[in-house]
Amino acid sequence: MTDSFRLGIAGLGTVGCGVVKIVQTQAPLLQSRIGRPVQITAVSARSKAKDRGIDLSAYAWEDDPVGLARRDDVDCVVELIGGEAGAAKELIETALQNGKHVITANKALLAHHGAALAELAEQHNVTLAYEAAVAGGIPVIKALREGFTGNAVQGVYGILNGTCNYILSVMKDTGRDFDDVLAEAQAKGYAETPPDLDIDGFDAAHKLCLLGALAFGIRPDFEALHVEGIRNVTATDISYAEELGYKIKLLGIARRTEDGKILQVMEPCLVPASHTLGTVDNVLNAVFVEGDQVGNAILIGRGAGGGPTASAVLSDITDLARGERRAVFGVPAAALQVPDYADPDRLCSRFYLRLSVIDKPGVVADVSAILRDRNISIESFIQRGRDPGNTVPLVIVTHECRQSDIRAACQDIGALPVVAEPPHKLRIEDF
Amino acid sequence: MTDSFRLGIAGLGTVGCGVVKIVQTQAPLLQSRIGRPVQITAVSARSKAKDRGIDLSAYAWEDDPVGLARRDDVDCVVELIGGEAGAAKELIETALQNGKHVITANKALLAHHGAALAELAEQHNVTLAYEAAVAGGIPVIKALREGFTGNAVQGVYGILNGTCNYILSVMKDTGRDFDDVLAEAQAKGYAETPPDLDIDGFDAAHKLCLLGALAFGIRPDFEALHVEGIRNVTATDISYAEELGYKIKLLGIARRTEDGKILQVMEPCLVPASHTLGTVDNVLNAVFVEGDQVGNAILIGRGAGGGPTASAVLSDITDLARGERRAVFGVPAAALQVPDYADPDRLCSRFYLRLSVIDKPGVVADVSAILRDRNISIESFIQRGRDPGNTVPLVIVTHECRQSDIRAACQDIGALPVVAEPPHKLRIEDF
Repeated sequence: MTDSFRLGIAGLGTVGCGVVKIVQTQAPLLQSRIGRPVQITAVSARSKAKDRGIDLSAYAWEDDPVGLARRDDVDCVVELIGGEAGAAKELIETALQNGKHVITANKALLAHHGAALAELAEQHNVTLAYEAAVAGGIPVIKALREGFTGNAVQGVYGILNGTCNYILSVMKDTGRDFDDVLAEAQAKGYAETPPDLDIDGFDAAHKLCLLGALAFGIRPDFEALHVEGIRNVTATDISYAEELGYKIKLLGIARRTEDGKILQVMEPCLVPASHTLGTVDNVLNAVFVEGDQVGNAILIGRGAGGGPTASAVLSDITDLARGERRAVFGVPAAALQVPDYADPDRLCSRFYLRLSVIDKPGVVADVSAILRDRNISIESFIQRGRDPGNTVPLVIVTHECRQSDIRAACQDIGALPVVAEPPHKLRIEDF
Repeated sequence: MTDSFRLGIAGLGTVGCGVVKIVQTQAPLLQSRIGRPVQITAVSARSKAKDRGIDLSAYAWEDDPVGLARRDDVDCVVELIGGEAGAAKELIETALQNGKHVITANKALLAHHGAALAELAEQHNVTLAYEAAVAGGIPVIKALREGFTGNAVQGVYGILNGTCNYILSVMKDTGRDFDDVLAEAQAKGYAETPPDLDIDGFDAAHKLCLLGALAFGIRPDFEALHVEGIRNVTATDISYAEELGYKIKLLGIARRTEDGKILQVMEPCLVPASHTLGTVDNVLNAVFVEGDQVGNAILIGRGAGGGPTASAVLSDITDLARGERRAVFGVPAAALQVPDYADPDRLCSRFYLRLSVIDKPGVVADVSAILRDRNISIESFIQRGRDPGNTVPLVIVTHECRQSDIRAACQDIGALPVVAEPPHKLRIEDF
């Protein structure tokens, strides 16, 4: 190993180029903060010819990214290719096997293969760092792994996908519907095409999976997450939520239940507008941590984009160049536990229901009877506007009840002749 | 050095006892996170006899805290005595000189002597850690020192004193006046007696001084801060601020000005109620960072109390026990700069003014003329309620103007025969 910390960077999109730029322009600052120079020795990307507006002439070029993992002049591979399989996986595995540190922004890969990669890193006495994989430049991995070590963490909540949060914010501000706002977001480059990974909640759930692993010292297991995206959220629901004092957010929850199980859910729900999480709009991300010592702490910032993500990569570079070697998920891979997972159906919370009902006498009585039979109390309802014989909205907020009960009640309510479509149901997350 | 990381703890108040409890009850979790056991070998406090509800029998007792710094069985001294001189200073200096790491929550000491202590630590190849000194359990020191290393930081803003924030929040919620709320806070133990260190802004300013040093790589210099507390904030101002869409917060600012100077100000000012910082109420603290890469990031949590502060101490214990050795202020002490400080008088912002004026024709004309002569434009004013011949409030919001101009204008306005008392002036901080 030379005196400088030598990087091989795979992937030269916005983030990769951002990292190159910072290393080039902030060299004295970085050296002062790290105590040794950081040097890029080799890079790899799809097209060598493409003009990226940065000077790459001093770096060796590898057509195959995996080549970076085999170079003697690379101490650390920065993987910014993405994807849960393919080149990214091969690159990371080869790098670790060859005794090179890895820095990655690849949440999908870690959510699916994190435990195996952590074991591989330990076997070869190197580190796998991924601050950039969750919540962009907000140092949430560092906070959970290093900042809250004195805590038994009880829960982590997160607004983790900027695209979804942007779409929900625009829907709220303009009253426009989901498809319309999504199409605009795609045109503007805020949402990808196809948009499924973001709007179906998977990207956010990948991140939640990593936060849960760190918070509870468990093996990341993406299959154990309940995931639902924002496709079914309507402008009408957002408007009613606002009237009730809430915003609709795609919120991830990883928490320890009273019986010691782990619950991991990513789904849209109602968050109090006056709560700090309710102020996290547009492309912002937020992570909310409940620790037994620290109480509640929230970290908020931009969750994506070249600058924030490159900032996170540089944080990892600094740590690794200084010789810091944290366990990938906070504790040795062998100590990571396979917990009992809680069944979301058994959980209790308040719910928001929106029904389309025929405006005629007796409807509320029918709906109320079904809820009563399922042991669900009504906290409030809104039924505004009259249109006898036609459908009108009926919005109900329940007291705390069990998810399985509300689900069953919704099925029964949907089967009523006076109910025009399946009820819209959203969980209310009170803090 | 034995296999375990051995602590000597000075000061057994809420925080010290909290640290002892965590080390005692979370030993397996800590060992798993750190990779070696943490052990308390010796403690020191004022009274050995006092019942603290924890078992100290396994630890050696030092009547003089400085004795901890001389023990062979102590690798790291945890200083929780407080105070910018006296025993705390002697303990820390002796410990560093004797090659022991130091963890402290002592912002006053670091704000005044941080640079010298950083040099001393480096000379003896040990570390001085102080996550607990700023914003309780929120990992703000770690975020600035390690999380944002890829950034040139442009500014750090903070709500850093829980007592002040609590008093301002209660004043807002109840409409009660400062003295009344302070007395209650003292009775409840939320404010100290005498309360000066908190309510005159010094405690918050000590913390800001450390954040500024870390953010800009400058020598902490408490004398370079402009400090003003919350004694002169009235319930009336809070109420008008609310009407204008703002909250009054004791807000610290450390930022680089356009001409490259450093501005450091701690004073009450108006913050938009809809901004995330506007939701930081009661005993919460917040730190807002502007980085050139990361953009804006905010960290929020409890800024004081046994649990949060002990949580921060444990974060430092984890780092040091793992062998991590960051420079005290992020860069080597010799590289810390002495910057040019900006004169707050030359800064521009919007201002809130509240006057008590005799209700008679021509008053607004007189006041407006003075503002015009100082080149200050009025954005809006509120003059509600009539009481001819008696004093009524007149509230003015200015467009952006220079602090020195508004100060001079206030002096002139205060001298008008129709103005009953010196104007209340507060800066508006728009984000």
